[in-house]
Amino acid sequence: MRIADVIGKVTLSKCHPELTGATWLVATSLSLEGIRGDKAGRGEPFVVFDERGAAEGSRIAISEGAEAAAPFHPGDKPIDAYNTAILDTINI
Amino acid sequence: MRIADVIGKVTLSKCHPELTGATWLVATSLSLEGIRGDKAGRGEPFVVFDERGAAEGSRIAISEGAEAAAPFHPGDKPIDAYNTAILDTINI
Amino acid sequence: MRIADVIGKVTLSKCHPELTGATWLVATSLSLEGIRGDKAGRGEPFVVFDERGAAEGSRIAISEGAEAAAPFHPGDKPIDAYNTAILDTINI
Amino acid sequence: MRIADVIGKVTLSKCHPELTGATWLVATSLSLEGIRGDKAGRGEPFVVFDERGAAEGSRIAISEGAEAAAPFHPGDKPIDAYNTAILDTINI
Amino acid sequence: MRIADVIGKVTLSKCHPELTGATWLVATSLSLEGIRGDKAGRGEPFVVFDERGAAEGSRIAISEGAEAAAPFHPGDKPIDAYNTAILDTINI
Repeated sequence: MRIADVIGKVTLSKCHPELTGATWLVATSLSLEGIRGDKAGRGEPFVVFDERGAAEGSRIAISEGAEAAAPFHPGDKPIDAYNTAILDTINI
Repeated sequence: MRIADVIGKVTLSKCHPELTGATWLVATSLSLEGIRGDKAGRGEPFVVFDERGAAEGSRIAISEGAEAAAPFHPGDKPIDAYNTAILDTINI
Repeated sequence: MRIADVIGKVTLSKCHPELTGATWLVATSLSLEGIRGDKAGRGEPFVVFDERGAAEGSRIAISEGAEAAAPFHPGDKPIDAYNTAILDTINI
Repeated sequence: MRIADVIGKVTLSKCHPELTGATWLVATSLSLEGIRGDKAGRGEPFVVFDERGAAEGSRIAISEGAEAAAPFHPGDKPIDAYNTAILDTINI
Repeated sequence: MRIADVIGKVTLSKCHPELTGATWLVATSLSLEGIRGDKAGRGEPFVVFDERGAAEGSRIAISEGAEAAAPFHPGDKPIDAYNTAILDTINI
């Protein structure tokens, strides 16, 4: 799972019908420097489906690819990034 | 989901038979600078399958990998990029 | 789907038994510059499974990951890049 | 499978209910230089699900994507990085 | 499929029980320069599951992601890189 910081939210105009009403975060993945607090260590922002109640500033672990939709099987949700966990502490 | 801007369309000459008649967009993924309007923040263009009616200039969220084909299961469509949502506003 | 140009073919010596006799292309993915004809805009070459009859010089859309094998389900073909369509024109 | 070194652990505050109690490592993937001991040859850190008992300093092989969750099928665990093996020696 | 050269082997100390006894290669993916013999055209090394009898120096095509485990379905092997074919000649 990539480690990422939540930096915002998205409002949708049109989406796949099964996804109406969900929370979509904007997050940015972190390098080692990013984890240690260096803003330069932040990657491209991307959209993450959230069920954990993460907010701006939360540090999260993100599952990507087919497994991002695993919590919704069987189903046809076209999701490829899912907030698996809000991280409390990272010991490195 | 990657955040991308629609920059064009593709006309096919030969394709997998189940995909005849579909709309195929050309989109380019966006970095944080790209979201803020800097053209340098645009990545490689790629082809996206569209059912939302996106047009050139639309900002969209793209599912990739196996989940891109989730809306069509069970089926054998070889699609790996799907327009999941047209984005209205991004608050970052 | 990544946009790519076919640049060659591969001859196999030993392969998974279900793949004997197939056509394997060598393709290179294209950046925006590559689509516009700049050779510097070409990425790493990779091997693509072909059923469309693409030839050297064809511009194609490539599905990757699990969906590359979707046309063969149910089956056990270890394919992760499939020529989904030969592109006629790209309007960008 | 990517080759990676374990560099730490993660404590979760909120996670998907099926993942409570699991061990989550922080690992960093290695380039050829990284395998040979050069710290500059280390990539971005990411979170890995562990069942092998790896500890800080272990060198491991990591499966990613849908197959990372294969040991748990059928199930709905949103995991995309799994410690497949602790490596003893690498002969290159 | 990525094109790669086999550069070594791995000895495991602990692995997922279904993978005991398998051959695990270390391979490095090739850019166009790498295919033409330039050592600078080699990417990060990674671990590949082998059933073709590849040896150091073999040039191979590698399936990645979920399809890498396709030859073993139904099963729970956490494999994400599989030697699909040993390449004889590459005409580019």
